[in-house]
Amino acid sequence: MHSAGDLAGRAPASVLCDWGSSRLRAFLEVEGRVAARADGPGIGLLGGQAPEEVLRRTLAPWRASHEFERIVLCGMVGSRAGLAEVSYVRAPAALAPWRAAVQAVRWDEERVHILPGIQAQNFRDVPDVMRGEETQIFGALRLRAALGEGRRMMVLPGTHSKWVEVRDGRIARLQTYFTGELFELLCTRSSLLRLGGGLEPDEEAFEIGVRNAARYDLAANLFETRSAQLIEGRSAGWARSFLSGVLIGAEVHSMLAMPSAPRGEVTLIGDPRLTDSYQRTLAAFSVAAQCLDGDECVLAGLRAAAENL
Amino acid sequence: MHSAGDLAGRAPASVLCDWGSSRLRAFLEVEGRVAARADGPGIGLLGGQAPEEVLRRTLAPWRASHEFERIVLCGMVGSRAGLAEVSYVRAPAALAPWRAAVQAVRWDEERVHILPGIQAQNFRDVPDVMRGEETQIFGALRLRAALGEGRRMMVLPGTHSKWVEVRDGRIARLQTYFTGELFELLCTRSSLLRLGGGLEPDEEAFEIGVRNAARYDLAANLFETRSAQLIEGRSAGWARSFLSGVLIGAEVHSMLAMPSAPRGEVTLIGDPRLTDSYQRTLAAFSVAAQCLDGDECVLAGLRAAAENL
Repeated sequence: MHSAGDLAGRAPASVLCDWGSSRLRAFLEVEGRVAARADGPGIGLLGGQAPEEVLRRTLAPWRASHEFERIVLCGMVGSRAGLAEVSYVRAPAALAPWRAAVQAVRWDEERVHILPGIQAQNFRDVPDVMRGEETQIFGALRLRAALGEGRRMMVLPGTHSKWVEVRDGRIARLQTYFTGELFELLCTRSSLLRLGGGLEPDEEAFEIGVRNAARYDLAANLFETRSAQLIEGRSAGWARSFLSGVLIGAEVHSMLAMPSAPRGEVTLIGDPRLTDSYQRTLAAFSVAAQCLDGDECVLAGLRAAAENL
Repeated sequence: MHSAGDLAGRAPASVLCDWGSSRLRAFLEVEGRVAARADGPGIGLLGGQAPEEVLRRTLAPWRASHEFERIVLCGMVGSRAGLAEVSYVRAPAALAPWRAAVQAVRWDEERVHILPGIQAQNFRDVPDVMRGEETQIFGALRLRAALGEGRRMMVLPGTHSKWVEVRDGRIARLQTYFTGELFELLCTRSSLLRLGGGLEPDEEAFEIGVRNAARYDLAANLFETRSAQLIEGRSAGWARSFLSGVLIGAEVHSMLAMPSAPRGEVTLIGDPRLTDSYQRTLAAFSVAAQCLDGDECVLAGLRAAAENL
C-alpha cells in the first residue's frame, strides 16, 4: 500500500511495449532513457488470460515508483486477439501518417495508445500485412537517416519473416514468409527430426542446406533432412542445421527471384543470432547485408511514436 | 473356446498385410480370393503397444475358423519400429530378388514373413528409401503387364509420396516428398488455417493453388493461405483446398523440373481421392496420368510374394 504522499512523489515515466505473437517486451523510459525492462507472454500465448490483466501485472512493479505519462504499444496487441483491433494503415506509409493513426484505448482507469499495423501489396501484388515490424522499420530510419534515401529492402526475420521495400522513407511493399513457424513445426512435430542423436548445431550442415536451396526447390529438399539421418547416419543436430539452411535459403532464393524486389544491400533487423544466419545466407547468394538490433530499432520506433502523444 | 474337432476343421488361408506408418490393412485370402478384411493402427500409431500383440489381436477373429498357411507383411512393419528390421534391397530391383529377400520372423508359436523395402538413388543422386510402396509397384506390374516395358514414372501419393522410375520392370530410382505429412501439419498445427469459417472443399481454390505452384516457389505461396483468409475473407475450406493445390502443385512441379526424371504418361497408385487430385494437378502441367487403386495393387504384390513361400 502507498500513501498519498508516496504516490505524489512518483517519478514521471513512459511505458513503451512491443507486444507480438510470441512475446511482450516492455520498456520503462525515464527522462529519455530505459530505466527497466520486463517480459511477458505474447498475444498468441495468453492461454485464456485477458490481455488487460497480463499488461497490468507486467507493469505493476513499476507503478509503485513511477507515474505513467503514456503507455504506447505496438504489434499483435492491435489485432482482434489483443487489447483492441486497430485498422491497418495502407502503404505507401511514412512515419507521420502512421503514428497519427494511433488509437487510444481505455478500460477501468487505464489509458493506452496502440499503434496500427500496415497493409501493403507484396512483390507479386497480393495484399499482405504486418503488426509491429513497421515500428522497428521507422525506428531503423530514425537511427540511420541514410536508410531513408532511395529504394531499399529491409528484412525482419522471425516467426513470420517480413521483407519490406522502403522507398524514400515510406513503407511501400511487404511480403511475409512463415519460415520461423515452419522451422519450429518441422523440428518439433514432423518425422524429419525424430531420429535422435546429438543436437549441437553444425555450421557446415547449415551451409549445405543453403547451397541445396540455391539449386533445388524446397519440396525436394525437405525430405533430405530425414534421409540424411536414416541412410547417411547424420545426427539430429546436423539435420536441424541443414533444415535451417534449407528453409532460410528457400526464403532468400524466393525473394531474390522476384522481379519487382529492390536490389542492392539489404538491412536486416532482429535478434542478432537470427540476423547473422540471414546475413550468411544472403552472402551465399552474393548479396551484402548490414544487421541492426531489433530491440534498439523497436525502442527507437516507439519513441518516435510517443513523442507525438 | 474351440474343441480339437473345431480346430481340425479350419479352412486353410493366407493372411496378407500392408502395415504402414499410419494403417494396418489385413486381407484374409481363401482359395485365391479375399474372404475378409481388417484394419488396425499403423506402426507410427501404436502408442506403446507391442506390434506382435496388435497383429495377434487383429487376426484373432479369423483364427477360429481358418488355419493360416502363411502370414506375409509389407511396409513399415519391416522397420526398426516394426516386428523386425529387414534390410533394404538395393535398386535396380526386380520382383524375383526382392521377394527372395523376404525375412521369416518367429515369436512364440507365430511365424510371419516380412518383405523388404528398397533403397535407391533419387533423381539428384542422393540415397532414398521406401517400405511398402515397392509391393504396390510389383502388384501394378502384375496387373498391367505393359507397365513392365520401357522407362516410366509411377507415383504413390500419401503421407510420404514416392516418385519411382521403373525401367523394364525394375525399380530404378525413387524420390520422396513428404507432402501429405506437411499438409496435415500445416492444417492442424500451423497459423495458416486457424482463422475459422466453413470447411467445405473448394475445387477452384485447389486449381488456384496449383497455378500458383507453377508460377511461384513454395516458400512464397504458403503464407498466402493465411493472408487470403485474413485480408480477402476466404473461408477455412477455401484455404485448405488452396493449400492442398499449392503443396501437390509444388511436388509435381519439382519432379517435372528434374532433368533425370522419365517423361511421358505417369501411373498413379493409391487412394482414388488422392490419385484424382494428382491426376488433375498433372493435367495442369500437361502430363497425362492413369490411376490404379492402391489396395488392388498392394494385394497383387503381396500375392506375387506369397506364391513363392
